[in-house]
Amino acid sequence: MAQPYAGELLGRFIAGSDWAAIPPALRQEGVRSILNHIGCALGVARDPAVLTPLGVMRGLSAAPTATVYGQGLKLDAMGAVFVNAIAGNLLDYDDTHLNTVIHPAAPVAPVCLALAEQRGLSGAQVLHAFLLGGEVECRIGNAVSPGHYARGWHITSTCGAFGAAAAAAKLLGLSATQCWHALGIASSQSAGTVENLPSAAKNVSVGNAARLGLFAALLAEAGYEAAPAAIEGPLGWARAMGDEPDVAAITEGLGTRWEIARTTYKPYPAGIVFHAVIDACLALRAARPVPPEAIAAVEVAGDALLLARGDRAVRNNRDARVSIHHSAALGLVLGRAGVAEFEQAAVDDPVLAAFRAKVTAKLDAGLPRGAARVTVRYADGSAAERVVTDPVGSEANPLSEAALDAKYRDNAALGGFAERAEAQIAAIRGLETAADIRPLMALLA
Amino acid sequence: MAQPYAGELLGRFIAGSDWAAIPPALRQEGVRSILNHIGCALGVARDPAVLTPLGVMRGLSAAPTATVYGQGLKLDAMGAVFVNAIAGNLLDYDDTHLNTVIHPAAPVAPVCLALAEQRGLSGAQVLHAFLLGGEVECRIGNAVSPGHYARGWHITSTCGAFGAAAAAAKLLGLSATQCWHALGIASSQSAGTVENLPSAAKNVSVGNAARLGLFAALLAEAGYEAAPAAIEGPLGWARAMGDEPDVAAITEGLGTRWEIARTTYKPYPAGIVFHAVIDACLALRAARPVPPEAIAAVEVAGDALLLARGDRAVRNNRDARVSIHHSAALGLVLGRAGVAEFEQAAVDDPVLAAFRAKVTAKLDAGLPRGAARVTVRYADGSAAERVVTDPVGSEANPLSEAALDAKYRDNAALGGFAERAEAQIAAIRGLETAADIRPLMALLA
Repeated sequence: MAQPYAGELLGRFIAGSDWAAIPPALRQEGVRSILNHIGCALGVARDPAVLTPLGVMRGLSAAPTATVYGQGLKLDAMGAVFVNAIAGNLLDYDDTHLNTVIHPAAPVAPVCLALAEQRGLSGAQVLHAFLLGGEVECRIGNAVSPGHYARGWHITSTCGAFGAAAAAAKLLGLSATQCWHALGIASSQSAGTVENLPSAAKNVSVGNAARLGLFAALLAEAGYEAAPAAIEGPLGWARAMGDEPDVAAITEGLGTRWEIARTTYKPYPAGIVFHAVIDACLALRAARPVPPEAIAAVEVAGDALLLARGDRAVRNNRDARVSIHHSAALGLVLGRAGVAEFEQAAVDDPVLAAFRAKVTAKLDAGLPRGAARVTVRYADGSAAERVVTDPVGSEANPLSEAALDAKYRDNAALGGFAERAEAQIAAIRGLETAADIRPLMALLA
Repeated sequence: MAQPYAGELLGRFIAGSDWAAIPPALRQEGVRSILNHIGCALGVARDPAVLTPLGVMRGLSAAPTATVYGQGLKLDAMGAVFVNAIAGNLLDYDDTHLNTVIHPAAPVAPVCLALAEQRGLSGAQVLHAFLLGGEVECRIGNAVSPGHYARGWHITSTCGAFGAAAAAAKLLGLSATQCWHALGIASSQSAGTVENLPSAAKNVSVGNAARLGLFAALLAEAGYEAAPAAIEGPLGWARAMGDEPDVAAITEGLGTRWEIARTTYKPYPAGIVFHAVIDACLALRAARPVPPEAIAAVEVAGDALLLARGDRAVRNNRDARVSIHHSAALGLVLGRAGVAEFEQAAVDDPVLAAFRAKVTAKLDAGLPRGAARVTVRYADGSAAERVVTDPVGSEANPLSEAALDAKYRDNAALGGFAERAEAQIAAIRGLETAADIRPLMALLA
C-alpha cells in the first residue's frame, strides 16, 4: 500500500483527536500560551501598527461577531483574527517554539477565540483546537527548519497558516478528509518574508496566517479541495519554499510526543539571546544593590551570535531590544526589563545612556548559545561575576505561573487595562471549565 | 549614489504614468485583454468551482459594492475580485504572457473594475490601471522565470499579487512611495503552488492574488510600509522563492517597451501546444470536408513536449484539453473546438471516441516547439498534409478582433448570457471613452 500523505495523516489526527485523551499538563500549556498571547496583544493595543490595520479592517468587515482585544469593538471573524494576530506578535514578546523560532500562538489563538465566540463554544474546545493547531504548525515547521527561515521565509507566518487552518477545521467539525484539504488549501496561501521583518509588512503576513488559515477551513467546509501532496509533493509547498523537507518529522510520534508542549515564554521583550544577560545582571543587582555611580565597568561575555546581534549603538526601541548594553543597564540600574524599559523614553534616559557606555561586550566562544557571563567592577575596586546558561523562560527553566501572571499584569497596564487584568487572568486560567467563551471575550473587549 | 530599489522604480512608474502617454495600440491591447477575460469568466459562471467560493464570500462580505460577473449580485470589492479572478482563470482559457506563462488579466482586471465601480471611475482609468498592473506583473515574472515556475510556484498567483497591488495603487491615487510600499506588502502575501494546479486550491491562490493585491494597496494607503528591498533583497521575495533573480529585467525599458503588449489569447480552451494540431485539422477539413468515416487514419507529428503532454487516453475534460487525439478529432470531425467541445459530453460522444482511435502521435524532433504536422489518409487511398508553425493566437499570429468577439459570444452563450453578449462586447470595446464604468458593470451583473 502506498505511503499516506502528510496532510492525510494530519487530517486524521485533527479530526480524530479526543479532548479526553489530552493530558492535563498539555492542557495547562494551552492555558499558559493563550494567557501569554492575550497579554502581549493587550500591551500594544494603542500602537499605531495595530490601529492602522484595525482601521482598514473596519472598512472591510461583514457583520461584527468577533472581539478585537482591547479595542471596545467587534469585527467579522476575518478582520478580528487579522488584527489580534498582529497585536499578539507585534513585539515578538509572545511564545517561542525554539527549534523552529515559530511564535505559535499569534496565528492560531485568535482563530480559536473568534470561532468560539461566534458559535458559543466552550473553553475546552478552544484549548483543544489551539493545541492541535499549534502542534500542526510546529511539526510542519520542524520539517523545513532551519533552511526555511535561513532562505528568507518568516516561519511564524508561513507555518502559522497551517496552524490556523488546523484549529479552524477542528472547531468547524470538519471530517478527516476536509481537514486534509484545509491544510492543502492553506499551503497555497502561505507567505511572508524575513526581508520584511523590520517593517509593517511583517504584520500583514502574521495577520494573514490567521485569517487565511481560517479561510482555508471555510473553503474546505464548502467542498473545495487541494492536491493530495500539497505539503510535501515534488512541486508542493515545502520544496517550492526551500530544500528537501524532513517529511517524516511532520507525523512521527503524532499524538504522543507534543511539540506544542515545548513552547517557551519570554520574561523580557528583548531578543531571546539577551535574556541571560538580563538574568545575570538582575542577580548581581539583587546580591549587591548599589546606585549606578557605584559601578565602574561591566563586561558581558557571550558567544558569536550574542556579539553579532547585540554589540551596537542604541538609537531607538528596535535597537534597545537587541542591545547587550541596554540589557545590562536595565538589569543593573533599574532591576526590571518590561515593555516600558525598551521604549524610546528608556532609550533617551540619561542615566541609562550613561550606564550603557560603561558596558563592553566580549566574545567567549566557550560559552554555549544563549548563555552569558557578566562581570561587574565596582568603583571601590571590588568585582563580582555571574554566569547564566539557562535563563528564565528557556526550555530548561520555564517561566513560572506567577511570573506569567506578572507579565500579563505588566502588559495589561501598559495597554491601559490594569483594572481588568485580574478578572481576565482568572477567566483565562479557568478556560478548561468554561462552558462558553463569551464572558471571557466580553472581558477582553 | 546607491542604486534605486526595484520597488522604488516601479512605484515611480505607477504613480507617474500619464494616460496621454499610453500609445493607442497599447490601449487597444488593454481592451482586448479585458474583453477576453470577461468572456472567459462568463463562460464558467455556473461552474461549481465558481459557485463554491461565491457562497463562502457571501458569508464574509461587507456592504456589496462590486459586481460578480454573471451572478446577478454584488459583494464587497474583496469578495468580488476573488470570485471574478477565479472565474477568469478557471479553464486557463484566458490571456497568456508566453515568456512567463502568466495569465495577466485574471488577478488584475477584477481589481480595476471593482474599484472603478465603487468609485464611479472612467473606462480610461480602468484601462490605464490594468495596463500598469499587467506590466508590473509580467516584468516581475520575467525576473524570476523560468526557475520560479519550475520550482513549484504558480506564477499567475505569485506575480498576480504584484499586478493587482499596482493596479489598485494607481486607482487609489497613491504616491510613488506608497505604491512602492504596496508592492512590498504584496510580496509578503504572494503564494500558490504548481502542485495544487489540478485542484480547487489553485483557484484560491489566483483569487487571493487579486484580493490580497488590493488589500496591499489599501494598507499602503493607510500608512503601512514594507522593507525597501522587499522584492529583490537578500531575504526578500525573489530569492526566498527561488534562485538568483534577474533584477534588471524588472525595470529595463520601463514605460517604453511594454511586456503586457505581448499578451496572447487562446482560440481554443486546450493546452497551448495543441493549438497547432487543431489549426492544421481545421484547415484540412476546410480544404476537403468529408464525413468521419471517409477518413481512415490521422498521424500527428510534433516535438517532444507535444508528445509527452498529449499522447494519452481521454477519460475526462481535463484529459481532453491536453489530448492530441481529441484535438485532431474536433478539428476534423466537428470543425470547431470551443469550450463545449472539451466537456464530458464531447469526451463521451461515440463518434468522437471512435475517431480518436484513428489518430496516432509521432515524434518529429525537427519541428519547432508549438508546431504540428497532420497527415490524413482517406478511405479512398488518397492523403493530405498540413504543417502549422504559428497557430492562431500565437505572438506571430494574433487572434483577430473578429475572432476575439466570436470567442466572447461562444463563452457568453455557454454561461447563458447569449442575449446580452452584443451589448457587453460593445460596452467593453467602448471602454476608452466611457465616462463611468458602472453601465458596463450593470450589463455584466
